[in-house]
Amino acid sequence: MIFSPPFPTPSLETPRFSSAFQTEMATLLAWRRDVRRFTNKPVRRELLDHLLDMAQLSPSVGNSQPWRWVNIESATARTALRENFASCSAAALANYDGESARLYTQLKLQGLDCAPVQLAVFCDRETVQGSGLGKQTMPETLDHSVAGMISNLWLYARAFGLGLGWVSIIDPENVKRILDVPEHWKLIACLCLGWPEEEHIDPELERFGWQERTSIGRQVLVR
Amino acid sequence: MIFSPPFPTPSLETPRFSSAFQTEMATLLAWRRDVRRFTNKPVRRELLDHLLDMAQLSPSVGNSQPWRWVNIESATARTALRENFASCSAAALANYDGESARLYTQLKLQGLDCAPVQLAVFCDRETVQGSGLGKQTMPETLDHSVAGMISNLWLYARAFGLGLGWVSIIDPENVKRILDVPEHWKLIACLCLGWPEEEHIDPELERFGWQERTSIGRQVLVR
Repeated sequence: MIFSPPFPTPSLETPRFSSAFQTEMATLLAWRRDVRRFTNKPVRRELLDHLLDMAQLSPSVGNSQPWRWVNIESATARTALRENFASCSAAALANYDGESARLYTQLKLQGLDCAPVQLAVFCDRETVQGSGLGKQTMPETLDHSVAGMISNLWLYARAFGLGLGWVSIIDPENVKRILDVPEHWKLIACLCLGWPEEEHIDPELERFGWQERTSIGRQVLVR
Repeated sequence: MIFSPPFPTPSLETPRFSSAFQTEMATLLAWRRDVRRFTNKPVRRELLDHLLDMAQLSPSVGNSQPWRWVNIESATARTALRENFASCSAAALANYDGESARLYTQLKLQGLDCAPVQLAVFCDRETVQGSGLGKQTMPETLDHSVAGMISNLWLYARAFGLGLGWVSIIDPENVKRILDVPEHWKLIACLCLGWPEEEHIDPELERFGWQERTSIGRQVLVR
């Protein structure tokens, strides 16, 4: 593990987390948002490096660490991604009508126009690291490892006040062409990272009336 | 949000996380493990309920909350799952030989024999919640939402000293039959939850010599 001061360094002693920490962690879970509105303040390179260092500690099937990163810095690539999103979003809009269509056009569904940091995260479906352990019956577990890693990054970034947004309204094959990555890399997410313009405890989709949180995901069957 | 005392309640004030919290969070990320060795101490029902309450705050595409839970309590279902694992693990072992095969047999790859809480987590691929938002070009984003939720649960459980283990050496269709769930639910993970017998900062796969962490997942292409 490499952690450059002045960034946090994990304790090497077995931790016992206090109830104060548990409460702050609950607050972090409650205030993490999918952020699409960013200020123009840049993210320091050292802070981004630290976040990626910490993301390496995320679990992965067979310890395969299958996540692969592209930092999208060029105006050309960013423009192409925005066009990709715009085209996919227009196609999605065509599936809605009436009030849903009106609401859809009012939602801000991505931060590709303003996020100072834009990352594409892929899964290397052909990685040999881990020697295939744990993925013979469920090879998609590799993708799930990448998604889980993004969750850890999301929470840790929020602890520094940074907002992250996950863009999925995008054509993954087109993203691969734009970014010129190996064919066997599978796109998991386009991520926007930066300093949020505003902070909320409720998701934008709920606040704007698209979809409330319900109890459906809280029901538990017993077998 | 429902949070029963004496469990943590998130702050309703916009949080500013301290560097002390960031450091504890880094420690949490470093000490989260995939746990396969549990004591026989039960997990209080109220604590499990609280963990699931908090997991609801995880991000999901379109605010769809597509995770579906089965709490596997019966001896019959647990035995069938262990047999499912044993059969898949034996098939996986046949793909290794020499030192790899010897190492494989020494690894403890799941806690189904001892975990006090065993949960299967599915993705409802046909959920209407969210009205399809964000999943037209990448429908697998629903699965990724479930995987990300599991990551949040994993970290939050660890903050209470609980260990979680993710079992993927299992036949997902067989799990669906054993647990009698709707056909359109897709298995994402079988989870073991309980109090760890031992705590480590390094993954068992690294400690036992199966797979070290490398820098491959830390490389960043620039485009």
